[in-house]
Amino acid sequence: MLDYPPSAMTLNGKCAHAHASNAPTAIVMLNLGGPRSVDEVGPYLERMFLDRELIPLPFQERLGRFIARRRTPKIQAKYAEIGGGSPIYAWTKRQGEAMAELLDQLSPETAPHKCYIAFRYAEPLTASALTQMHADGVRRAVAFTQYPQWSCSTTGASLNELWRELIRLNLRDAFAWSVIDRWPTHPAFIKAMAKKVREGLDQFAADERDSVLVLFSAHSLPLSVVERGDAYPQEVAATVQAVMECLGFSNEFLLAYQSDIKPFRWLVPSTEQVIRNLGARKRKNVLVVPIAFTSDHIETLHEIDIEYAELAREVGIANFKRAPALNDDPLFIRALAEIAAEHLRSGQLHSSQYKLRCPGCENALCRSLLNPAHDATRTRARAESA
Amino acid sequence: MLDYPPSAMTLNGKCAHAHASNAPTAIVMLNLGGPRSVDEVGPYLERMFLDRELIPLPFQERLGRFIARRRTPKIQAKYAEIGGGSPIYAWTKRQGEAMAELLDQLSPETAPHKCYIAFRYAEPLTASALTQMHADGVRRAVAFTQYPQWSCSTTGASLNELWRELIRLNLRDAFAWSVIDRWPTHPAFIKAMAKKVREGLDQFAADERDSVLVLFSAHSLPLSVVERGDAYPQEVAATVQAVMECLGFSNEFLLAYQSDIKPFRWLVPSTEQVIRNLGARKRKNVLVVPIAFTSDHIETLHEIDIEYAELAREVGIANFKRAPALNDDPLFIRALAEIAAEHLRSGQLHSSQYKLRCPGCENALCRSLLNPAHDATRTRARAESA
Repeated sequence: MLDYPPSAMTLNGKCAHAHASNAPTAIVMLNLGGPRSVDEVGPYLERMFLDRELIPLPFQERLGRFIARRRTPKIQAKYAEIGGGSPIYAWTKRQGEAMAELLDQLSPETAPHKCYIAFRYAEPLTASALTQMHADGVRRAVAFTQYPQWSCSTTGASLNELWRELIRLNLRDAFAWSVIDRWPTHPAFIKAMAKKVREGLDQFAADERDSVLVLFSAHSLPLSVVERGDAYPQEVAATVQAVMECLGFSNEFLLAYQSDIKPFRWLVPSTEQVIRNLGARKRKNVLVVPIAFTSDHIETLHEIDIEYAELAREVGIANFKRAPALNDDPLFIRALAEIAAEHLRSGQLHSSQYKLRCPGCENALCRSLLNPAHDATRTRARAESA
Repeated sequence: MLDYPPSAMTLNGKCAHAHASNAPTAIVMLNLGGPRSVDEVGPYLERMFLDRELIPLPFQERLGRFIARRRTPKIQAKYAEIGGGSPIYAWTKRQGEAMAELLDQLSPETAPHKCYIAFRYAEPLTASALTQMHADGVRRAVAFTQYPQWSCSTTGASLNELWRELIRLNLRDAFAWSVIDRWPTHPAFIKAMAKKVREGLDQFAADERDSVLVLFSAHSLPLSVVERGDAYPQEVAATVQAVMECLGFSNEFLLAYQSDIKPFRWLVPSTEQVIRNLGARKRKNVLVVPIAFTSDHIETLHEIDIEYAELAREVGIANFKRAPALNDDPLFIRALAEIAAEHLRSGQLHSSQYKLRCPGCENALCRSLLNPAHDATRTRARAESA
């Protein structure tokens, strides 16, 4: 027995002292994050432009800081227009707490559950989450991406930050990990999305509803990332198909990509160009559906609701609406809880795709899993039933 | 009654003289086609490079002929290597005949059914199909694309040719049309595809099978076409997801695109580049699955089986295999028959996406439907049961 490192001892179910107390199973909600106030915009952008895993730049340290500084006033103005900050923290907290509560019912054998937020570019950062988990005596932890579709730029960057921070904080063996790395077509998620599309359609007059074009819009990705083999466009497209199938293909639909920044080449078609073209085609009713993000944020509240809405007016789209974000919709909370419960029940460490590094990847950290929770759940369940 | 044009008279079920005889319901199989002999390569390539809907060129007439002439010897050599011609005619004929037979059972109310092949670039061309249909006394016709996923470059170009040829041959009102324009996630098609992937996996040693990377490969598309709003990448991705779901995500998988031609920009990642990268990553077991074509053709028999296989050897992929094409697999024949039967039963003229012209489209012919078979099936069924 003495050969076991302490973490393994805790995990084999016999000497799970940490579990003996009521230490929670941690559900770590990974997301981008956003500045909660205008003052946080600067540090937020700086973290973003210093992240090679998101935006690789030559002379990253200097150029990244320079670009972040230069963009700050413009982005601050946008946040000022949507109430002074991003609501992503508030939404994630609400989603996480409601999910954890429901999860206690769905998966009593791993209860209690507690959600921790680990944002990549805003507080609470990964380190805050890990420190709190340690203070709470957590042993078993699930890294649960809040991006439904995988991209190395989003979930990948968040997970790599997680593994790096665990080592930096000397917490390498503190927690036994598994990962929910994607859920692009989980039936409960699709059902929740379909409901939001229906709510979006309900904003149109009844006799116009059938003629509404549903324009799914996902955050764009540089083609250089797609060229490496990133799964994002494939998975986003799969979500779109599943949502429309769930809706019985009630309306015409398109998938486009928003928020690209020159001078890189990005996924096409761009949402902005599609809106221009739809105007030119005299399309009158357009419903934009954010499909790769689960709560409101600057891309819905500003880019779609203000910028694209203005463009739509200019090009003559009479009724331009947006489907509500999932936010705290009960169906979505249920989806999160079901996804987590199924993951815990399965005893799996990650999806079958997680270990597949992009064929063109050069980042050796990618697809790591520190201190995996091998059969942790099942071992514990067996121990308890014995 | 005299106000009705003759076609409408035939269709309203009361004066359906043409139907009184045993005129078949025509199932028109639309596909690319291929040269059946080395001699047909020249005319085949010429038709292809003269088609603005496939490859828009400046000075199309002259440049198209020039490129076709220049490429002919190289392409002839490739066809010589795979037995002297494309098997696509033989496969389509077999698929169509077997489908029609099964369709007579699945949809007796529209029987007899007869399949007609309308290739876009090789005999039998659209005109041959239409002439034969006319000679057979056909009234009701279904244009059934053999490309599972929509693209304006494939199904779109075939349908536009159909509408043009109907007018040119003075057959505008001769047939009452409906269109099966896409079936990317039809359950019977997915089931057949999953079977072919399993057959592909069975080519690997049992103890290697779990480590096989399934590399779905679809014909590439210029990004300029995707920019217009072409549904192809979304639908191909949806097929891939559905097939993997059907297989319970048994293996790691990727989607890549093959057969791009410089100097345009095409969908990424390219199959060729992915194979190189997989070699560099020391991947030993790779199964290529053609996902956007339903029978063997030069892209499977030569590009994958000869060219990519050689590349794979060069880059060190020890076991490089290809999943068999659907060809005359009974599950696929059943899928075709079920898709056709459901279409006929539905009374629908086309999918809910067919009428949505790409937002960036400038081709006014796109998404036409000449002489639609409004409720033709149901009207006839009613008339017969009366």
